[in-house]
Amino acid sequence: MKVRRKLLTIFGSARALLDEAALESYSYDSKVKGPKPLAVVFPRSLEEISRLVQLAEDEDIPLVARGAGSGAVGGAVPLKNSIIVCLSMMNRIESISTRDRVAVVEAGVVTRELQDEAEKLGLFYPPDPASSEHSTIGGNIATNAGGLRAVKYGVTRNYVLSLLVVCGGGRVLDTGPAVVKDAVGLDLTSLFVGSEGTLGIIAKARLRLIPKPEHTRTVLAEFVDLEAAIEAALEVLIRATPCALEIIDKSALDAAEAKRHGFVSRECGAALLLEFDGSRAQVDAEAVEVESVLIRSALAVRSSEDRREREQLWSIRRSLSPALYKRSPYKVAEDISVMPSRIPDFVRALDGICSRLGLEYAVYGHVGDGNLHVNLLPTLKDDPKVAEARALIFEEVWRLAGSISGEHGVGSSRIDAARRQLGEERLMAMRRIKGVFDPCGIFNPSRGIPL
Amino acid sequence: MKVRRKLLTIFGSARALLDEAALESYSYDSKVKGPKPLAVVFPRSLEEISRLVQLAEDEDIPLVARGAGSGAVGGAVPLKNSIIVCLSMMNRIESISTRDRVAVVEAGVVTRELQDEAEKLGLFYPPDPASSEHSTIGGNIATNAGGLRAVKYGVTRNYVLSLLVVCGGGRVLDTGPAVVKDAVGLDLTSLFVGSEGTLGIIAKARLRLIPKPEHTRTVLAEFVDLEAAIEAALEVLIRATPCALEIIDKSALDAAEAKRHGFVSRECGAALLLEFDGSRAQVDAEAVEVESVLIRSALAVRSSEDRREREQLWSIRRSLSPALYKRSPYKVAEDISVMPSRIPDFVRALDGICSRLGLEYAVYGHVGDGNLHVNLLPTLKDDPKVAEARALIFEEVWRLAGSISGEHGVGSSRIDAARRQLGEERLMAMRRIKGVFDPCGIFNPSRGIPL
Repeated sequence: MKVRRKLLTIFGSARALLDEAALESYSYDSKVKGPKPLAVVFPRSLEEISRLVQLAEDEDIPLVARGAGSGAVGGAVPLKNSIIVCLSMMNRIESISTRDRVAVVEAGVVTRELQDEAEKLGLFYPPDPASSEHSTIGGNIATNAGGLRAVKYGVTRNYVLSLLVVCGGGRVLDTGPAVVKDAVGLDLTSLFVGSEGTLGIIAKARLRLIPKPEHTRTVLAEFVDLEAAIEAALEVLIRATPCALEIIDKSALDAAEAKRHGFVSRECGAALLLEFDGSRAQVDAEAVEVESVLIRSALAVRSSEDRREREQLWSIRRSLSPALYKRSPYKVAEDISVMPSRIPDFVRALDGICSRLGLEYAVYGHVGDGNLHVNLLPTLKDDPKVAEARALIFEEVWRLAGSISGEHGVGSSRIDAARRQLGEERLMAMRRIKGVFDPCGIFNPSRGIPL
Repeated sequence: MKVRRKLLTIFGSARALLDEAALESYSYDSKVKGPKPLAVVFPRSLEEISRLVQLAEDEDIPLVARGAGSGAVGGAVPLKNSIIVCLSMMNRIESISTRDRVAVVEAGVVTRELQDEAEKLGLFYPPDPASSEHSTIGGNIATNAGGLRAVKYGVTRNYVLSLLVVCGGGRVLDTGPAVVKDAVGLDLTSLFVGSEGTLGIIAKARLRLIPKPEHTRTVLAEFVDLEAAIEAALEVLIRATPCALEIIDKSALDAAEAKRHGFVSRECGAALLLEFDGSRAQVDAEAVEVESVLIRSALAVRSSEDRREREQLWSIRRSLSPALYKRSPYKVAEDISVMPSRIPDFVRALDGICSRLGLEYAVYGHVGDGNLHVNLLPTLKDDPKVAEARALIFEEVWRLAGSISGEHGVGSSRIDAARRQLGEERLMAMRRIKGVFDPCGIFNPSRGIPL
């Protein structure tokens, strides 16, 4: 077939996967299964991506950009007869400047690798999605990844100075100079951050780094129930800026067997995991302040600055998603976002919805910025209760002026809810903006921006 | 005339200025003089703005949004036969939530007023342009205003959660939910921040606040020359995050008569003004760290936490712009932006350019984020040396991968340089994005985005 031959011409046989069995393994992300793609290609340069885009436009073939495929909503899963553009071979950290605290990286660099290289130089790349061990900077940018440290340091968007993107016509767009402050023209950079592959292929990024915080303290606080934990979290936020403020409900703690493993006491009905970082003085001062708030309502408060002990405290949090899968292999995870003050209302409504439907659930996540991971735990595959609960949960989120997604994005699995949330005015604007960069409609069509 | 009659119908005679003498006073901003507008209107609601936009589209009349008119580049100055949309009567702070740290404000709220109201509630709105006493939130958003605290807290964009904007057709666009994290759809909010009135009329904003820092310490350090001051600033940035890091060169100090007033010693060839804020422990720790860095190369270091003394230290900085006007009433101020490590190269080149042309100059500004206010001080009106120097300075900025503006924007006075800097790819994208929101081309045409 003509297209395959042309792909081989551009990428060579080593970097153009056409084999059926191999293609199969690129047909899913961490949650969503799609069709097999036509091909998977591994570009190494802007020029190769340009040629690919021209070919795709000529042949009207959708291009789906992919980093590590660790997304949760199908944004990097193949469309029918699409080509997967896997950026994993564009994985060079081109430079890190300690003086300017800027990293120039290719899109396929693994986030953790950048974090490690930055730390060696006394610098820090704060965005830290749960997937950072294997997810890529390009994927993080395409989804505007959040993660544990967003409550203090913000999300990926806050660290992207500018991008090199290949857009329609194979044209290379440099979104702006890599300076801290730029007041010339529209902010094209922010437009690409979180665009889920719909506007072009992000090939390179200039990222802002910050000085590495010297000390880190982790605090685990146990509460009698979820309401008490939420109240304490809101109190903490008034007084301090933790770099992580996570909540875990009883159902999630139970799934992770937190009591059996001695992580929390038998009475614990919900937990907060907090982290503070900064200078010695800063961490000490915040610890005193915050622990005094927590102790008022907590059953127990433990804290540590020892690396091993801290990792142990965090291990509960990290074990939640796999533990909940064990509890229900059919689990559906949402990542709704509301303003912190609305969280008590939201969890009350969630409990009402799930109780009424007889559906188990667990809640954990970034209570500090109002972004909760709601896990629905059906006992059957394709349990109709899940769709029903999801619809009711989204209604509740909208009633509370929130968003159905705080970090995972729209992808394919939330496209209908996104259409509802965005409404006609915003949708129209977004579709037309897509048309500016992607006049032929080949970049991840039908994903991210509802048609 | 028909248009005037229709304006009176929408706004009444009290809120539609048509009188020639009155119009004259809306024909300039802080630096640029334009023609008299056709009319100045003062909307009080989204509905009125919608009707105005429809009228303007029907009659093909440009609309120029205006806050306090404190801009420096002509962005809010009338175009020929345009209507000035003055937002000063939409000046209500609708709400401030202490729990969620969100303020909902109309565009005409004066920035300082929001800052003051937030502080009464223990909250803090960090963006602090020099004009904050009279400039408006809407104007700050339209220019993505920076200011003294950007080095630690970022610029206006970092505090805008979402906006209500009236776009083409008089349609009201809500750019998104007011949540901390939202991963649904393209980031329309950031697109409007810094758009200089070219995409629509910004009517309302939902802004993020942060807890008010408890303590603030101001430090003044004197150096033998500009190079030494820059080096010290770069050293400080590696070790700490001041909330202000300003530089002042000898020429600016002299203009402000800093020596005669006893602000700095006779030997002082350049000064750094720094500020640190946060908890008691944090400010103390940073002060020790930073003052130990400064003292290595400084002639003298003074610091204070007393409000009066701090204000006195800052008074030098605030007096610079008026003092330089006294020195040259024809002064031209640029606000170039380069990465911090490029500053030594830039100031060397600047000195070379101005010496060669026999043109006096002064430099001061936000050295912490690479954003310098370059003041050219000609002795004659319309001195051709100024245009020559400006062109050479911009060339140098581009050679150093910087931007010709870090905070003032493009407006009308930098439109040619902006065209050069943006280049065809970015320009094309920006023009088309403008077309998405402003199909009739009535919003501040020819400003901000070069035609």
